Amino acid sequence: MDPIPPAKVAPLRVTTDVVIFTINDHQLQLLLGRQNEEGDAWAFPGGFMGPDQDLQSCALEALARDTGISGVYLEQLYTFDWPAPDRGDRVIHVAFYALTPWDRLQDLPRDANTQWFPMGQLPALSREQATVVETAQQRLVAKLDYSTIAYEFMSESFTLSQLQAVYEIIRREKLDKRNFRKQVLGLHHIEATDKFRRNGSHRPARLYRKTHPGQVTIIK
Amino acid sequence: MDPIPPAKVAPLRVTTDVVIFTINDHQLQLLLGRQNEEGDAWAFPGGFMGPDQDLQSCALEALARDTGISGVYLEQLYTFDWPAPDRGDRVIHVAFYALTPWDRLQDLPRDANTQWFPMGQLPALSREQATVVETAQQRLVAKLDYSTIAYEFMSESFTLSQLQAVYEIIRREKLDKRNFRKQVLGLHHIEATDKFRRNGSHRPARLYRKTHPGQVTIIK
Repeated sequence: MDPIPPAKVAPLRVTTDVVIFTINDHQLQLLLGRQNEEGDAWAFPGGFMGPDQDLQSCALEALARDTGISGVYLEQLYTFDWPAPDRGDRVIHVAFYALTPWDRLQDLPRDANTQWFPMGQLPALSREQATVVETAQQRLVAKLDYSTIAYEFMSESFTLSQLQAVYEIIRREKLDKRNFRKQVLGLHHIEATDKFRRNGSHRPARLYRKTHPGQVTIIK
Repeated sequence: MDPIPPAKVAPLRVTTDVVIFTINDHQLQLLLGRQNEEGDAWAFPGGFMGPDQDLQSCALEALARDTGISGVYLEQLYTFDWPAPDRGDRVIHVAFYALTPWDRLQDLPRDANTQWFPMGQLPALSREQATVVETAQQRLVAKLDYSTIAYEFMSESFTLSQLQAVYEIIRREKLDKRNFRKQVLGLHHIEATDKFRRNGSHRPARLYRKTHPGQVTIIK
């Protein structure tokens, strides 16, 4: 329903921005890359989209190129339009968020240009960047309640205490252990393995695994 | 974090698509515009975005131009990337959905190029268009549960039966009258007026109004 013939329309630059979260050291952390050599300006992994890419592959390719990270859960977050700092026009930023277990990052070569920051200790960000982070965090918190998204932070096998810690870190509140276990086991999204994890002098804790790895399900 | 200088990046065409819903004749309906003179191809209101527009204003201006409708609730839905039918490259479609009470449309001049369709009787749509409609309907159904979005379908004043009908039409299920009233009144998002609506030989029903008109609130 547009009177302007599409081929004559002024084109815009479209970029993907990826907020990638992990949980480490009892904190929700996100990855930023250095924008300049002084290292005092930071940006999300991401990149401009070419006419022969789709949005999802553009985001995944940019993430892999900027950070070496691949094979993660990725979800479109929101599309922002910001004035381009270098010219007068606008750039369309299609923001995504991604989640990865911390232990999957250990095999990657260290990239000197990227750094994980705990959410409470982010470097100075522009107002626009801060909005993207806030939007991503809100989506993550909301989705925790009605989906199996938390499992994207878990290793292949994990204890129920480790899973509970993920919920507590993201929600920033303590949860009742008995209720949590009852709820989580009742949903049948995880199953017990026959392995145990020893933690100091405590009784060894049973290890669980996802029944549907690589799949985020909506729970009603 | 992109090695390509932004000014040299191949630009893309960005368009907004608006799925606008109303409720009339006990049905959820959406507006489509004729794409050709034969009237057998239909499109969403929307338009290509210029470098000096922002996404929201582009969608609102296109809606007003295509349909005469303004001042409605508008929310960004999802961003799709589809191959352009006329050329080989991709067009970025930033989809929005909008809601309007049916009675607000009565003062508008009739536009011969647009038509309201009940959700169950949509004309033939492309796979891409059908995806946008489905995404919009899913968002609306989900948001009904955790926000005051349903009030965007209501006139300035309304009975509780009319409000219940909106929930029942969108959810496609009957609701218990007593529970519904108790829940809705308990949230304090509507308040009683001193007016009543007579409906045939029934006892006149009290009219209510929104306590915060023009504002959609998240209910937890």
